[in-house]
Amino acid sequence: MAPIYLDDKISKNDLPRRYAIGLDLGGTHLKYGIISDRGEIVYKNFTPGRTSDGGKKVLNVMAEAAHECMMFAKKENITISAAGAGCPGTIDSEQGISLGPTIHITAWEGAEIAEAINKKIHLPVFADNDANFMAFGEYIAGAGRQKQFVVGITLGTGVGGGIVIDGNIHRGAVFNAAELGHVVVEAEGRVCSCGNRGCIERYVGAKYIVQDVVDALSKGEESIITQGLKSTGDITPILIFAAAKHGDELCGRIVDQMVKYLGAGLTSIVNVINPDVIVIGGGMSDAGPVFIKRIGDEVLSRVMKPVRKQLQVVQAQLGNDAGIMGSAMYAMKQLTLDNAQ
Amino acid sequence: MAPIYLDDKISKNDLPRRYAIGLDLGGTHLKYGIISDRGEIVYKNFTPGRTSDGGKKVLNVMAEAAHECMMFAKKENITISAAGAGCPGTIDSEQGISLGPTIHITAWEGAEIAEAINKKIHLPVFADNDANFMAFGEYIAGAGRQKQFVVGITLGTGVGGGIVIDGNIHRGAVFNAAELGHVVVEAEGRVCSCGNRGCIERYVGAKYIVQDVVDALSKGEESIITQGLKSTGDITPILIFAAAKHGDELCGRIVDQMVKYLGAGLTSIVNVINPDVIVIGGGMSDAGPVFIKRIGDEVLSRVMKPVRKQLQVVQAQLGNDAGIMGSAMYAMKQLTLDNAQ
Repeated sequence: MAPIYLDDKISKNDLPRRYAIGLDLGGTHLKYGIISDRGEIVYKNFTPGRTSDGGKKVLNVMAEAAHECMMFAKKENITISAAGAGCPGTIDSEQGISLGPTIHITAWEGAEIAEAINKKIHLPVFADNDANFMAFGEYIAGAGRQKQFVVGITLGTGVGGGIVIDGNIHRGAVFNAAELGHVVVEAEGRVCSCGNRGCIERYVGAKYIVQDVVDALSKGEESIITQGLKSTGDITPILIFAAAKHGDELCGRIVDQMVKYLGAGLTSIVNVINPDVIVIGGGMSDAGPVFIKRIGDEVLSRVMKPVRKQLQVVQAQLGNDAGIMGSAMYAMKQLTLDNAQ
Repeated sequence: MAPIYLDDKISKNDLPRRYAIGLDLGGTHLKYGIISDRGEIVYKNFTPGRTSDGGKKVLNVMAEAAHECMMFAKKENITISAAGAGCPGTIDSEQGISLGPTIHITAWEGAEIAEAINKKIHLPVFADNDANFMAFGEYIAGAGRQKQFVVGITLGTGVGGGIVIDGNIHRGAVFNAAELGHVVVEAEGRVCSCGNRGCIERYVGAKYIVQDVVDALSKGEESIITQGLKSTGDITPILIFAAAKHGDELCGRIVDQMVKYLGAGLTSIVNVINPDVIVIGGGMSDAGPVFIKRIGDEVLSRVMKPVRKQLQVVQAQLGNDAGIMGSAMYAMKQLTLDNAQ
């Protein structure tokens, strides 16, 4: 990939590179790596996150991964300056602590993320919500590069979000901003795990669309998706998209539902934030350009007139690397700012 | 009212006061006045806005009002430093120009607001969306004072909004942010004038709730609201609230509908912005503390756990003066910043 520079004003080629560790904790796996300040990934790996073994075990996994990066750096004579750690849930990014429970990790409330990693590598560690770092990664090196107002949304098991304004992650009063999966699309809709009703996530999250298909099949609806499957437990979003593409009525309806609700919800977000760009990432964004274009068309048909000419709705460019890229890049940026003060 | 200081670091009593003109254009009337930098309203007046006579006529009315303030200042030996002009619709606050049409004013697109007023008073003029200035007024001198993240929503004929982050109005990429009346609460709901479907405004805007009552009456529903009225054309939101308070079933249902949809829509806004406070203003916020509390309770029952302990949902403190206060205060603040550069 093309090199990225955190500061465009300096002469790039003359300077030695700086490096940071990026950690990206998902529902099942931890991705991690070493990124240079020019956006080069010089080391990359992943490991089971042991998220069902409790917060303490997860912190061990993260600290060990960071340590592995340090060992690699030592061998390659690379100097690491900081680490960033993107994690599910509400994260107090000032203290580096998890503030709330999340469906992805057991016993996650109160987990001291930054401290646990810092104890192992003795470097500044910046922890934040994973989707915040995804959005920051896309802002600094991806589809939202150079844009003043960037909204990132991640379509996976759940639906996450990040907002970057003037290069800063917008976290709100208690680090709870950009919970974009919990924007309401039906005032009296489905009950959500967050306590609200009718959240986007309940209509487009991977586990919910799979459930919708399973429910319809159990009611006797027919679908080509069952062909070759041993049980409905093997149904995945990828199979739903594939079946829809082949004209399957049930799966087509589920994809239509996703487009409708994402269109409505993203329009609400646009009417609050008025971003330059909406970047769609997460596993389900891999459903392809036709799906992304359908979402974009739905949003553009709903937003106000002045916005129609301006708004971009695009697929994330960094793919699976957005998280480690964003967390490492953010760590380097924040360290520079902290040192300047 | 208690004096307000734009800069808390300076010694207040020793300094001479500064003054600015505040203009607040509504659907029917223009409010205007002179405000000191300590939040004192030293002059206040209003006049028909002539909004149905076209943008050019409206600009004349605004320029004449500003001139009237200048004459008063001259007589009282007060020095005015700037003027702020809050107007309906999307306003390019950098150019001081109206960007789009609005249902409130005919031929409003392209109106050169700042220039028209500046030509008359020869002082810097700052134009912005009226709800942006309402939110700024509440931030600097009202219910959102000293708060880092302030969301203001105005419940009137339509539903407007303003967002103040770190003391700055959040305007977005093309001045279209904080269109809070157009947050979606029903993905396939009522068609809105903005081109979208299911916007908050379509369920809680004054003209729509009146229409809902009229429609129900025309279908044969009974209500005490008709007692003493010559025709259903005399129904107002105030009467709807009063009838609901007296146990009227139809009007009670309409108020319930408002609470439900405002609760759902404001929760979406909270899950995007995570503000310290939501300030509810506009004519219908005068429905009273019980109504405001019901909205607050609905929002707090829907937001995420960490937010429940922190979020405030309160009535605007500046009432009808929020617009002139916000526009004048903003003009003084912006002039100071511009001069410092």
